[in-house]
Order: sequence, then structure tokens, then C-alpha cells
Amino acid sequence: MTDVWVNETLYPDWGQRFLVKRELARVKSEFQDIMLFESTSHGRVMVLDGVIQITERDEFVYQEMLTHVPLLAHGAAKRVLIIGAGDGGVLRRVLQHRNVEKCVMVEIDGEVIRLCQEHMPDVAGDAWTNPRGQVIVGDGIDYVRQAEAGSFDVVIVDSTDPIGVGEVLFTDEFYHNAARLLSDNGLIVNQCGVPFMQADELRETSLRRGKFFPDISAYVAAVPTYVGGFMTLGWSAKTKGLRDVPVAEIRRRAEAAGILGTTRYWTPEIHVGSFNLPPYIAENLPG
Amino acid sequence: MTDVWVNETLYPDWGQRFLVKRELARVKSEFQDIMLFESTSHGRVMVLDGVIQITERDEFVYQEMLTHVPLLAHGAAKRVLIIGAGDGGVLRRVLQHRNVEKCVMVEIDGEVIRLCQEHMPDVAGDAWTNPRGQVIVGDGIDYVRQAEAGSFDVVIVDSTDPIGVGEVLFTDEFYHNAARLLSDNGLIVNQCGVPFMQADELRETSLRRGKFFPDISAYVAAVPTYVGGFMTLGWSAKTKGLRDVPVAEIRRRAEAAGILGTTRYWTPEIHVGSFNLPPYIAENLPG
Repeated sequence: MTDVWVNETLYPDWGQRFLVKRELARVKSEFQDIMLFESTSHGRVMVLDGVIQITERDEFVYQEMLTHVPLLAHGAAKRVLIIGAGDGGVLRRVLQHRNVEKCVMVEIDGEVIRLCQEHMPDVAGDAWTNPRGQVIVGDGIDYVRQAEAGSFDVVIVDSTDPIGVGEVLFTDEFYHNAARLLSDNGLIVNQCGVPFMQADELRETSLRRGKFFPDISAYVAAVPTYVGGFMTLGWSAKTKGLRDVPVAEIRRRAEAAGILGTTRYWTPEIHVGSFNLPPYIAENLPG
Repeated sequence: MTDVWVNETLYPDWGQRFLVKRELARVKSEFQDIMLFESTSHGRVMVLDGVIQITERDEFVYQEMLTHVPLLAHGAAKRVLIIGAGDGGVLRRVLQHRNVEKCVMVEIDGEVIRLCQEHMPDVAGDAWTNPRGQVIVGDGIDYVRQAEAGSFDVVIVDSTDPIGVGEVLFTDEFYHNAARLLSDNGLIVNQCGVPFMQADELRETSLRRGKFFPDISAYVAAVPTYVGGFMTLGWSAKTKGLRDVPVAEIRRRAEAAGILGTTRYWTPEIHVGSFNLPPYIAENLPG
């Protein structure tokens, strides 16, 4: 039997490849091509339109940084909105925070949820049935358009890159509505790609977000399967200062929230340090 | 014409691949298989025994962190020994430091130096002819065995992984001699692989280094083509405290040394933050 490899097709001339132990699912949904397989190196892996989205072995890096940084920087987030993140891993991390009262997750592709529930049940754990969570299969753009002003404290966007189905989550309209639905100290984070390979993505979304938020930046995470050095997570806040909370206060908040000691990548020190950008990344931010 | 790809063979079941624009050299030296090619994604690339060692586009990350962190943490390094690093990029960065009086580089494979000089001349720039530098083609093990006690302030080991030609640089004998040739405040750094994929490498060298140095740790760098999240650089110092120099002092030293503003990854904040390890990495260090 010959080896079967999956080559990621995100970039035309460089990428990662996985030896496939077993294919688990291959579905053409209304929105995208979904493929799940089992690897010997990374456990189970989900691929959307040829791009690696999640692996069982390294998902903790991305999920922890996308969730705990905004929630603990805010410090009193009670109402959280997630856009995308159909694997349920962000939902699970948000609901770990004791002080969160309500978490709404809006994922456009029900097939992604279904396939992750079937093939990667540990990623979300029992988050799907947590009474503080509400999972909506629907259009995030519509949801933010209709959401009441000031109705959320933190928005987390876990989208694909700004091509294909994720493109609308990088538009003026989306950021305008996000700013409107956030409370006064609110903030939104979104994945901004790997700047070593996709600097345009960070540069363009930062300029765009700058039109609607007074505090724009990014923070970094070294995610093993988002290859190419640091990935950036975009930061847009309605007030300044949330990036400068001292490490001792972040630690205190993490302890109060029930997060301290539960993480494998995030720590209070890494939280604070993640806003220090290498010059090759910082040069893509406005001003 | 069909596309030609180079697949890295470091791991049997996962890796990166590069579209080859043009092969530049393929040499079987006394020590290893050396291959250089031009890529559209990363400029020129050197591969040793199937493992990516350096690309023109991302070498700055690894070289800056491997050089500036130990030199500025030490603060008064005048005599620096480099083992390996045949591309000359570490030599160039060491010689950037105004206060360095002498830098000896010992590379076992003269073919690596020759091929990098021919095909990647910008990596070392004019370091090869700098009168403060001395390049020896020879065995690093022999060199450290014969070096005078206390004759260097910092040792930088830029080796391949502890397989093949690099293996001897991870032995008791090597670390014993390194401790001997270092001055009282001396320290040695060495590449320790990507722990997400090769946790054994960090775990085993840390235990071993702990036999000869009172202060053992590691620091992290997100190197785009050392794929798999953070790579770790091993830290072994003869005195404690060098990891805790405050950011303002690191900045002052970098300015005095002529480094501030010359880097694309290293900053004083990233220097200090790089010692904060994610738990999944920290768990591989001795107690």
C-alpha cells in the first residue's frame, strides 16, 4: 500500500503535508469542501478548502490564545459572541470562565459542527450542552447586523482566511456592526493569518479595523500547524489600556475566572508578552 | 515541465515542502549531503541530510535570537566562540556587537562554508574578512577539548539536531569542556529543536546540561521554517540571574553595542519575554 499524504494548498509554492492514517470524512457542504482525516503526527485533522483548520494535538495553542487573552484583558466579560469556530473549542474555553453568563456562537456551516462533534468530540467536550452557551447555525454577518447595541462585551472571530466563506468577516460592514454591538469597554479579536507569509492580511484588516475602533493592534501565538512563524490575532478595542494590564492583575483575574493552571500554552506572562511584536510584524500595523 | 518539490524528511509523517525554482548545488561532503536550491517562497534554501537549515528570507529570526540574547544577557562579552553555523549568519551578528573583541567560529564542514559563500553571500556579508573574526574548519569537539580554561565569555552552538554529524555536540564531554572554557559569568546557548515535535531533544539536553551548569533553561523563537510552533534555544549559565536582566537594561546594552534598531525579530521586550515558556514546553525542563 502506498503512503497517502495530504498537502496543504494555502500557498502555491510552500506548505505542510501530513501522512494520512485514515480518511474520516469528505463532504462538500453548501459553503466549502470539508475533509477530516487521522494522522499519526497530529491526531485528527480538519481541512477546509485545502487549508488546515484544526488538529487535535495542537488546537490548544490557538484556542487558548484566542479566548483567554481577550476575556482576561477585559476583566469583566459576561456576554461573549463567537463567530465561526465550528469545532467548539473556543466555546469550551469561553465557558471555562466562571464569570461568563452567556456565550453565543454563530457558525455558518452546520456540517462543520456535525463533523467535529462526530470525529473530534474532545475539542468541545460538553460545551455543546452547557446552558450558558447558545449555538446558532447561521450567518455571522446577519447576526451582527441585527444584534442590539452594547449587547456583548467581547467578540471572538475564528474564521478562515479572507478568501471564500470567511471574506465577509473582514469587511467595513462587519467591523462597523461589531463596534456597535460591543459595550463601552468591549473588544473584538480575530485571526489575522501568519504575517511572514500573508502580511497583507494583517495590514489590510488593521487599516480597516482602525476606522471603527480607537485601539488597534495584534498579538502573537506560535501555532504549530499554522506554519510560518507567529500567527497574529487582531485586536480592536473601544477603549485604550486593555493591552497594558500588568501580569499580576492578569494572574489574579485568571485565578478568579478558574483558568489558572488549566492551560498548556497561555500563561499570565505569555499573555502580557504576546503584545510585543517583532519589527517584521509590527511594520504591518497602521501608524 | 512538471513542478519539482523538495519535501523535508525530518519527521516521517509530517513536514514542509518547497517548490523548487532552480537547484543550485548538490554535494556529498565528508560529513553530510548538502543541497541548495532557489525557491519562490523563501529565496535560497540550504538542506543538510534532508533537513532545512536556513532560508534567505527567514534566517534573521533564528540568527538574531541565537546571538543577541546571550550576548546582551551577559552584558560584557568580549570573547565569543561559535560552533557550527557554517552559513556565517551568527558570525555576522556577533561581530555587529561593538564590544566583542574576538569571535572564533569552528565549523566542521568546509563545504557548507564554501557553498554558502557562493550561493548565499548576503547571510554573512563581510563577516568572513572581519579582523575580529577567526574561522576554523575543524572539529568543535577537539577545539573545546583543547581550549584554555576561562578563555571565552559566550559559546553559541548552531548545530544540526542530535543525529548524524551534530550528535557529539549534545554529549557530556562537550558540555563539560564548554563549562571549563567559559569565564565565571559565561554561558552557552544551543539549538534544542521544536518541542512540539521533538520534546525528547529539549528534555535530554537539559538534563545533561544540568550536570555541568547551575542555571539551566531555554528560551523560545518562532522560526518560520523550523516548523511546529516555537523552537527552543537551550540556556546554560555559570551564574544565575542573567535571564532576569530588566528590559530597560537590555535596551541600554543593545544601544551601547550598536544593535538597537538593526533587528527584525529581536527587541528588548522579546528578549525578556522569550524566557517565559508555555507549560507544554516548560514541562520538559528539569524540576
